[in-house]
Amino acid sequence: MQEQRVVKLAVIPGDGIGPEVVAEAEKVLDAATAGSGVRFEKTPFSLGAGRYLETGDTLTDADLEAIKAHDAILLGAVGGTPGDPRLKDANIERGLLLKLRFELDHYVNLRPSKLYPGAGSPLADPGDIDFVVVREGTEGPYVGNGGAIRRGTPHEVANETSVNTAYGVERVVRYAFDLAERRRRKLTLVHKTNVLVHAGGMWKRIVDAVALEHPDVAVDYLHVDAATIFLVTNPGRFDVIVTDNLFGDILTDLAGAVTGGIGLAASGNINPDGAFPSMFEPVHGSAPDIAGQQKADPTAAILSTALLLDHLGLHSESARVTRAVEDDIADRGASTRSTSQIGDAIAARLQA
Amino acid sequence: MQEQRVVKLAVIPGDGIGPEVVAEAEKVLDAATAGSGVRFEKTPFSLGAGRYLETGDTLTDADLEAIKAHDAILLGAVGGTPGDPRLKDANIERGLLLKLRFELDHYVNLRPSKLYPGAGSPLADPGDIDFVVVREGTEGPYVGNGGAIRRGTPHEVANETSVNTAYGVERVVRYAFDLAERRRRKLTLVHKTNVLVHAGGMWKRIVDAVALEHPDVAVDYLHVDAATIFLVTNPGRFDVIVTDNLFGDILTDLAGAVTGGIGLAASGNINPDGAFPSMFEPVHGSAPDIAGQQKADPTAAILSTALLLDHLGLHSESARVTRAVEDDIADRGASTRSTSQIGDAIAARLQA
Ligand SMILES: CC(C)[C@H](C(=O)O)[C@@H](O)C(=O)O
Ligand SMILES: CC(C)[C@H](C(=O)O)[C@@H](O)C(=O)O
Repeated sequence: MQEQRVVKLAVIPGDGIGPEVVAEAEKVLDAATAGSGVRFEKTPFSLGAGRYLETGDTLTDADLEAIKAHDAILLGAVGGTPGDPRLKDANIERGLLLKLRFELDHYVNLRPSKLYPGAGSPLADPGDIDFVVVREGTEGPYVGNGGAIRRGTPHEVANETSVNTAYGVERVVRYAFDLAERRRRKLTLVHKTNVLVHAGGMWKRIVDAVALEHPDVAVDYLHVDAATIFLVTNPGRFDVIVTDNLFGDILTDLAGAVTGGIGLAASGNINPDGAFPSMFEPVHGSAPDIAGQQKADPTAAILSTALLLDHLGLHSESARVTRAVEDDIADRGASTRSTSQIGDAIAARLQA
Repeated sequence: MQEQRVVKLAVIPGDGIGPEVVAEAEKVLDAATAGSGVRFEKTPFSLGAGRYLETGDTLTDADLEAIKAHDAILLGAVGGTPGDPRLKDANIERGLLLKLRFELDHYVNLRPSKLYPGAGSPLADPGDIDFVVVREGTEGPYVGNGGAIRRGTPHEVANETSVNTAYGVERVVRYAFDLAERRRRKLTLVHKTNVLVHAGGMWKRIVDAVALEHPDVAVDYLHVDAATIFLVTNPGRFDVIVTDNLFGDILTDLAGAVTGGIGLAASGNINPDGAFPSMFEPVHGSAPDIAGQQKADPTAAILSTALLLDHLGLHSESARVTRAVEDDIADRGASTRSTSQIGDAIAARLQA
């Protein structure tokens, strides 16, 4: 009998369309690794708005410890219905999603953008689009260092502090340069150095310093406002973008839209050191309005498993998933398939 | 003889293409007001990277006081050649442009986006686009409340604090609602309430409170990342967007790109209280690479004079400028005209 590599996978289906798209991602993961000597041992975690409404918990210490004992995490989407009064005091995004990214030191938020043939771009002349945003995941305006005084009065002052460290910036910048070396050797720093002079200045100095070690990588810099212009006028100019947590959030939604919609955009929250499990999730949210109707496109979740396989060193399995998705997109046309029909079709290509 | 209204206009041509586009804007301003009983008394101010390189000054107290004595300001663009070592320690953007916005309490940064027939959008199916971004201009991450410790060492920490006040948010929100009342009665707040909970929470509460006084205005909310998606997939959904200083910066560059390019995007930095002169400027920068070559499109500067005229209560003159620009754009085709040829053509339409 062949020896088996067992990968312990924590699965967080979450809310809304999360469970539906995760089911298809699991299906494809199994199909891609059948007979490969790798077996996924999956543990489901019931987390999200649903769990909060039942138990009042967002992410307990016990949950976190249990998740840490896994090799990787597959997440669908979290978040309840906007405006649900019972969620008024909950912040599932901060308390669950961002808490996982921060506690598991996911300092690389990896978000590839590729325009696959057949995927409809809203741009008239999109050209070839194939870039990766390396978004910092554990610093910046996301740290939660804010507060307010005189809340609810006409004299309220509400502050939010973006915290940035040389340690945190250098490690993600190094990752981005290494990635650029394996791609088309072009790296663009996006920030707002003319306004955020301290944070932006540090990012710029660190990129310039690390660039000296990579003389073969062409480096440029764009202010975040200018970067959004290029994303719609000349997205082909980008190879690797490295940027802070908030700018990365904005640019990757726009990039997703430009490459055929957020229904195709995959992401990895990666701890490259391997100290903690990395987490793979579609960029889209929980879309409660279409939940449970088999209307969601599971492609982003499925492409996230390609990133997961790659992270686990299963490169050929990863490439097969990407290829199967690419072929499926090319053949889509105007067909309307259910969530599971899309998953089945992609899994079938892997079994063929 | 007809009585004359004299408007004291401070003119800051600035750097790069600034002087070229401002010359055309002045030409159009004169043509639009010829025989109207309004005369512009213009004072040029030599400010920008050029002045800094000559004198070491960015904006002196005397400059500022002299500017304050005017009724309005027309600005071209400021900023030297990127990477110029002599500008290493200067921050013309912060020291001049942002200083003017802050010192003159330009709390409304008004940025209309309209797709004129004939203006090429990069979108395949742009539809009708006609919205206005009301960007807060005196708070948020732009306040310059940042700093760094251990600068240049591996232990550097660089912070940037976004400061937001109920006073500052309420006044710009009220302006946006009033504007929505005069337009299609739809207002969208853009922020990132799920991450920037304190600042975003305050913005949301204030918008909800002011909305009660405007029951006829339909109000919705979008996270900034989602807003960028809609700007390329359904820009027609927007009427008035109200947002913070940084999000407004990003959204308006993207909006400019989507409506035919930043060469057409006008803006007003407005102090609605009239305590200080308001300032009108194209959204684009100084583009030193094409400066002095008559290659720049002066349309954004010219459309900024339409905003200026409107601000001065000269509504029919403003409408005439907009109409002349609209007609010029419709007839442009693939013609390549010089900066002054475009200005001449638009001025000629006003004289006709
Ligand atoms: C849900 C939200 C907190 C999250 C973010 O802002 O990072 C999301 O927009 C994303 O991009 O993954
Ligand atoms: C030059 C820069 C400081 C400025 C800004 O960020 O506000 C510009 O981008 C703008 O939008 O007017």
